[in-house]
Amino acid sequence: MYTLYYSPGTASLLIHLALLEIGAAHTLELVDFDADAQRAPEYLRLNPNGLVPTLIINGIAISESAAILMSLSDRHPQAALAPPIGTTERDAWYHWIVYLSNNLQATFRFWFYAGDLGRSEHAAVTHEALRLRIEKIWTTINAHLERHGPYLLGEKFSAPDLQLTMLMRWSRNMPHPATEWPALKRLADHVCARASWQRMREIERLDDWQ
Amino acid sequence: MYTLYYSPGTASLLIHLALLEIGAAHTLELVDFDADAQRAPEYLRLNPNGLVPTLIINGIAISESAAILMSLSDRHPQAALAPPIGTTERDAWYHWIVYLSNNLQATFRFWFYAGDLGRSEHAAVTHEALRLRIEKIWTTINAHLERHGPYLLGEKFSAPDLQLTMLMRWSRNMPHPATEWPALKRLADHVCARASWQRMREIERLDDWQ
Repeated sequence: MYTLYYSPGTASLLIHLALLEIGAAHTLELVDFDADAQRAPEYLRLNPNGLVPTLIINGIAISESAAILMSLSDRHPQAALAPPIGTTERDAWYHWIVYLSNNLQATFRFWFYAGDLGRSEHAAVTHEALRLRIEKIWTTINAHLERHGPYLLGEKFSAPDLQLTMLMRWSRNMPHPATEWPALKRLADHVCARASWQRMREIERLDDWQ
Repeated sequence: MYTLYYSPGTASLLIHLALLEIGAAHTLELVDFDADAQRAPEYLRLNPNGLVPTLIINGIAISESAAILMSLSDRHPQAALAPPIGTTERDAWYHWIVYLSNNLQATFRFWFYAGDLGRSEHAAVTHEALRLRIEKIWTTINAHLERHGPYLLGEKFSAPDLQLTMLMRWSRNMPHPATEWPALKRLADHVCARASWQRMREIERLDDWQ
């Protein structure tokens, strides 16, 4: 039994999807950002950085969405979210999870939170640089998928496809949303057609994308 | 047999250390940044982003230092760089590798490369915000190590300790280098005393830290 601390549409969405893919029993606990609940002392005890998601596994709180994704994939091999250890496919799996986390997700963080760069809003030049950086990553991934898709690991769906689709959704109000890149759009269409995505949308009440 | 494309002192240092810890046969290929070799067409075929490290495993090029670290740890269990799959220790292992990669390493990238934020040098406010962000992370990790150290997973050395020590080294010329935090200093002292660190320093000719 797992407990997921979440806020709709944020990075916790990835872990929510993973739990639904696995079919693992879980409880959802809303962290109400409107009430600043992510900075409440009781939440900071679970997650000292005041971020979502936090997943409680056997009474222990763990954070960092990409890390939780790997832990859950390992703990539930029957869900086939990860290739076997020590294989070429597993190397690619690690590559994509890390690449999406520390290039794309980290850049989105600076895009959404100008405060991380010391400003209440971005200087125009910084805003533009971050946008171009994100678009360059879409182009890189799109080129990979054109040659080796439809999924990040090829023919077979796996955990980083969930991560990529969540990050694509974050671009929906940008000047060039990720769905403008055809191979990215195709991957997202596949992922959004899955029962897990549909169920997640109902529960998190997200009706603004795909 | 592995081939590591590296540049002294950069993120490839982590993979060099891992190979030395494992005792795996490997060839080193210098990517000469002074000659802009990371942007040469033959290198871009291996690593389209023009970054180091790239590790060739069975003829296949893989990138992203944190991902390569996990792959190598899995492929050589006898080196004990990773706890067994599906354990609480493994959850913590994933957490720290991802946390260091997408919080600390991603922020260092913006610190070192103002161009990623659209400028030839940082605006003072941005420089300051990035510095404070890095220092806050040192404080967070130091607090963890004070309570649960000496290593990130407790009593037992593992792969993310190599990653942390490399990132600590990157702060050596900052106003507050990471060694000012006592529990971080203690961890780095342990890691730098290992044969792998000493050998890496000789080969990469790094004589400016610890």
